Amino acid sequence: MTDFATTRARFHLPEGVIYLDGNSLGPMPLAAPGHVSAMMQGEWAEMLITGWNKAGWMELATGIGNRVGRLIGAEPGHVVMGDTLSIKVYQALASALELNPGRKVVLSDNGNFPSDLYIADGLLKSLGTEYELRVVSPEDVAENITDDLAVMMLTEVDYRTGRKHDMAALTKAAHAKGVITIWDLAHSAGAIPVDLAGCKADFAVGCSYKYLNGGPGAPAFIYVNPKWVDQARPALSGWLGHEAPFAFDLDYRPGAGIERMRVGTPPVIALKALETALDIWDMTSMAEVRSASIALCDQFIAGVEAACPQLTLHSPRNGADRGSQVSFRFDDGFAAVQALIARGVIGDFRAPDVMRFGFTPLYVSPGDVAAAVDIIADVISNRLYDRPEYRLKGRVT
Amino acid sequence: MTDFATTRARFHLPEGVIYLDGNSLGPMPLAAPGHVSAMMQGEWAEMLITGWNKAGWMELATGIGNRVGRLIGAEPGHVVMGDTLSIKVYQALASALELNPGRKVVLSDNGNFPSDLYIADGLLKSLGTEYELRVVSPEDVAENITDDLAVMMLTEVDYRTGRKHDMAALTKAAHAKGVITIWDLAHSAGAIPVDLAGCKADFAVGCSYKYLNGGPGAPAFIYVNPKWVDQARPALSGWLGHEAPFAFDLDYRPGAGIERMRVGTPPVIALKALETALDIWDMTSMAEVRSASIALCDQFIAGVEAACPQLTLHSPRNGADRGSQVSFRFDDGFAAVQALIARGVIGDFRAPDVMRFGFTPLYVSPGDVAAAVDIIADVISNRLYDRPEYRLKGRVT
Repeated sequence: MTDFATTRARFHLPEGVIYLDGNSLGPMPLAAPGHVSAMMQGEWAEMLITGWNKAGWMELATGIGNRVGRLIGAEPGHVVMGDTLSIKVYQALASALELNPGRKVVLSDNGNFPSDLYIADGLLKSLGTEYELRVVSPEDVAENITDDLAVMMLTEVDYRTGRKHDMAALTKAAHAKGVITIWDLAHSAGAIPVDLAGCKADFAVGCSYKYLNGGPGAPAFIYVNPKWVDQARPALSGWLGHEAPFAFDLDYRPGAGIERMRVGTPPVIALKALETALDIWDMTSMAEVRSASIALCDQFIAGVEAACPQLTLHSPRNGADRGSQVSFRFDDGFAAVQALIARGVIGDFRAPDVMRFGFTPLYVSPGDVAAAVDIIADVISNRLYDRPEYRLKGRVT
Repeated sequence: MTDFATTRARFHLPEGVIYLDGNSLGPMPLAAPGHVSAMMQGEWAEMLITGWNKAGWMELATGIGNRVGRLIGAEPGHVVMGDTLSIKVYQALASALELNPGRKVVLSDNGNFPSDLYIADGLLKSLGTEYELRVVSPEDVAENITDDLAVMMLTEVDYRTGRKHDMAALTKAAHAKGVITIWDLAHSAGAIPVDLAGCKADFAVGCSYKYLNGGPGAPAFIYVNPKWVDQARPALSGWLGHEAPFAFDLDYRPGAGIERMRVGTPPVIALKALETALDIWDMTSMAEVRSASIALCDQFIAGVEAACPQLTLHSPRNGADRGSQVSFRFDDGFAAVQALIARGVIGDFRAPDVMRFGFTPLYVSPGDVAAAVDIIADVISNRLYDRPEYRLKGRVT
């Protein structure tokens, strides 16, 4: 049984801040600067080039991949870290399309993170005009799984509403029609239990700077099902995915298994920061995180709805249908989010009118939620957001 | 006039080590751990998500791109950091091919870094069987520039021999035949003066962990000529290359200029380490680095040739035709490199028999070269490499 006070004690949280935006960027593990600094001074500085072998830098991408894999129900040895989530979406989609030759349609939904749709569009444009990206509403995905689809590419948890797709059911339905699945776990990994192996998901991708707390721009990950991994042709065929990168052969031969999804030189410094976050994840289980997260979200919904009838719930009311965030719609949402940040309650805003709050039991307690609700009630009821400086739209947070 | 003792003093170099492998991984700027730690503790920890605006994380990729751009003769505002070099090769090649529709052949040479060839092969396979990757010897590139080529993709300095292509002449010859050029500057940036603008190079890419000293897995960069940058369609169309990433539109519209070559969330921690390296680069000029580097390489060649007739020079003898490295061929080269590393002279080995040494005046002095030559003479003349433990081939360094 996890005492979340012990995980919370492992993070730095600024004085006076209630942080409800870990769904966008997780807070810093207290051990991160020291661990990164130790790597830089003890490995980079002292070992120089020999660090690739002596310090095990070359194995970090798969070693850490396994630790992430445990949190998303992947078979051991089937997750590797690297690049950014957008790149990993591209990689997965390019491979998946080739594994389903003869079909040219990719199904996604308009609640998918836009970058996934942009990347798909960019890839399909490169492949030719016979390819189609078909985008439907999240609620309509199931009825649009047809046998002309090559790939169904979805983000499990909607970044705006927190609405959660039924990964097991949709994957099963897709397979019944001969469709390969790609699941983006950006708002799932570290937020909710994921069972990639059990769902027989084909590909999955995700980032590590949100719920996993790896730091700004932390590396992404990719999972490939054992059924496909040795058949998948890497479109991004970089040297570290080669069977023998240091043979410097002129011809590309993909490495065994998930190794082939590596591309270029791994980001060692960033991977070291992520290691300290995964040490905290080792202290708990996704099942415990999930039940605590649902309780926090339910508490938040009840508190805000009671105090702020001006706000309209924009997330599923039933915890099992949500990820680990709660969104409310409010016409003055942008200004309200700025006013809340000024009061120390950090959430974020998503156009056109969505106030979004993430809940992560690792470092957010029921007391934090109660305090946040009080501040939100004050800001909304007393229109404290109604000040010109809160309406200046620079880049939104 | 740069006193290279002052730049050397800004790096950590381990006691007893003469480091001649900065062409593979540069040493650590002494300021790097503190700067990274300050960013983590002062920005990530304290600002959390608001760091993207408050700490300027979002502008790092272009700001640092400009600082790298100065070292490679790019027009201001035409270089952006991100991803890995292999990804940037893919990006450049995908865009370049579309800018030359109707032609389907990519010319490269067999001295190009294998990952560039792998990436090209992977992309061309995705695009279709009508595409061809034509690989010739480095010496034969000029005569193979024909008007059926879409793109000429070369690494300016050969990673094995240090042989330097004539970028200005080859670019001019390519343009005369309607061929778009991509220059990989992996062994050029920070090694030799590069004049991208003057050469009218179309695309250029490179990494920052070699001569630029950004750390293991430091981010790559891409340059696009002003002539093309607003026409180039990004195949890797990620959200940060979008005209308005935070509008979360469903349709991709490429950003203005080089911004469109951004893909995913930038690697903030790694970019911070690189900043400290660029502070050192601000202390000197590429012209001074180049003349000092040629002197170091000439001294090394003369010393090794005088002491070790067993070794055969594998680099151009004329400094102007070389990058900033010197290679020798030697049948027992693998074992000899291991023996040298054991004696504190760190170079590296490239199959089948190449001993490779990089020279970087920022932190390698004529005294270091003299000492390295003495140790090499001892190891070779007295066959000190002839021990079983030096013949164990694990991953080469």
